[in-house]
Amino acid sequence: MSYADRLLAALDTRGNACLVGIDPHLELLPAEFAVARDPRVERAERANAIARFCCEIVDLAAGRVPAVKLQSAFFEIFGADGAAAWERVVRAARESGLIVIGDVKRGDIASTAAAYATAFLEGTAGCDRSSLCDAVTINAFLGADSVEPFVLACERADAGVYVLVRTSNPGSADFQRHGEPELSEVVARHVARWGERVMGERGLSSVGAVVGATHARELARFRELLPRAPLLLPGYGAQGARAGDVLPLLGARADGTPSGTLVNSSRAILFAAREPEHRALHWKDASSRALERMIAELASAPRS
Amino acid sequence: MSYADRLLAALDTRGNACLVGIDPHLELLPAEFAVARDPRVERAERANAIARFCCEIVDLAAGRVPAVKLQSAFFEIFGADGAAAWERVVRAARESGLIVIGDVKRGDIASTAAAYATAFLEGTAGCDRSSLCDAVTINAFLGADSVEPFVLACERADAGVYVLVRTSNPGSADFQRHGEPELSEVVARHVARWGERVMGERGLSSVGAVVGATHARELARFRELLPRAPLLLPGYGAQGARAGDVLPLLGARADGTPSGTLVNSSRAILFAAREPEHRALHWKDASSRALERMIAELASAPRS
Repeated sequence: MSYADRLLAALDTRGNACLVGIDPHLELLPAEFAVARDPRVERAERANAIARFCCEIVDLAAGRVPAVKLQSAFFEIFGADGAAAWERVVRAARESGLIVIGDVKRGDIASTAAAYATAFLEGTAGCDRSSLCDAVTINAFLGADSVEPFVLACERADAGVYVLVRTSNPGSADFQRHGEPELSEVVARHVARWGERVMGERGLSSVGAVVGATHARELARFRELLPRAPLLLPGYGAQGARAGDVLPLLGARADGTPSGTLVNSSRAILFAAREPEHRALHWKDASSRALERMIAELASAPRS
Repeated sequence: MSYADRLLAALDTRGNACLVGIDPHLELLPAEFAVARDPRVERAERANAIARFCCEIVDLAAGRVPAVKLQSAFFEIFGADGAAAWERVVRAARESGLIVIGDVKRGDIASTAAAYATAFLEGTAGCDRSSLCDAVTINAFLGADSVEPFVLACERADAGVYVLVRTSNPGSADFQRHGEPELSEVVARHVARWGERVMGERGLSSVGAVVGATHARELARFRELLPRAPLLLPGYGAQGARAGDVLPLLGARADGTPSGTLVNSSRAILFAAREPEHRALHWKDASSRALERMIAELASAPRS
């Protein structure tokens, strides 16, 4: 089944568009996992603590939200041990029925991009496929030929891809708003075109776009440019976007095309125990409450 | 010593600007390493074959060229085992006195970019530092705040960074030439500004730029926009750029600023044995000859 159709099924089953972002910032981990930041401890054990924390988050998310997104950078700080932790968490998330998005933001010239698509989406002949992702984020700065191997992976391996169109950070305007029309708009038009090649049965493509929820006034415009692309909206929660900003993007379109939108929150869920209101709770209860709240906030919108 | 000064010292010592690109394409590896593509073999052993091949290339490059560039994607296809192979090759290259550039093209929002800078350039407290890179390539599409952690790593850890300005692939024009002035030019102006913060003793910055040697007519323009940035020019050899294209960028500028330019060739050196003219040679002799030829081609230019 295509990524788009798997995504829509998960959205329908869970009834919410929450994407839990697994960004294990070393310095923010609950005390229970402090070994991860202890310089006296072996790297393998530190990476193991990261994996344990992330697997707890997977437990928390499983059965409640459609998908999780793993941020590769926080695993890469522990090199090969971090990569082993990444594989363990991806495997746990897939086994628990969650859609797994690898937030890797890779992008390179064609033959190299093909290697990245192999690494994260298609796998190498003979290697265990259980730690592959359902979809990855990619950076299209290098151009259409750098994206092609990922679109091929969507076609051949029922994978998904989210192309960075307009990121959630303050500096995103520096280059993404360059030119007339703005670069983000040009990228969005390409995304729509690439997406035509991998349409699911319900009219949603497996080629999606990352659009920061922090740019509330631009969201409708990107939805218009990308009528059939699943959107991944980062920036909810800790980065400041609110439910009112994203609700208009969660329902099906007037022509019946399902939305497929996912709204990501990372720190506000993972590290909810750091908020004054949650200080009395165990970290996992704090995270659970924060997740419940986000689900409720987004629940007023129609599904898929 | 700053990255820029270490780079210039290496350029002076070796007397050439060759950067050997270590891109271990599975399907192009010499027969001796065919186990790497054998699906019946354990992943660890396959990754190990990649490491052995790359370490042979390191041997070939050591003492002859100033630097090597490792392409991360080809290691990532073997997950945690590939990451272990990466660490082994980086370590071998650094031990043999080569400057090591990690071609990782990472780019993300600030706190995540900081994790990438930790992973590749600064290291985590308590972790072995022998497999860190001297410099990495980064993708600035996310904006200035996404680059800042890498500039900090240049300041704090004497690291170097090469920002993608104009890549060597055919599709690079799709987005990089967007707008007026072209996006690449806007990025180049930012690179020059970021670079002012990390100037070495000889007037060269540790913040460099990737400019494809395949865009021969644009090279002079980028040199003008980036008078103090070390340039990394991919696209030599297999991708079609020739010595005449890059020679004007290898010498010191009229005002005495050293150039710091590196010219990368990957496939034409690593897989030279696949060329008809080299069929009779052992792969390593073929690679050695191809490297000698490139050194000779670039030698007619003045140093550093």
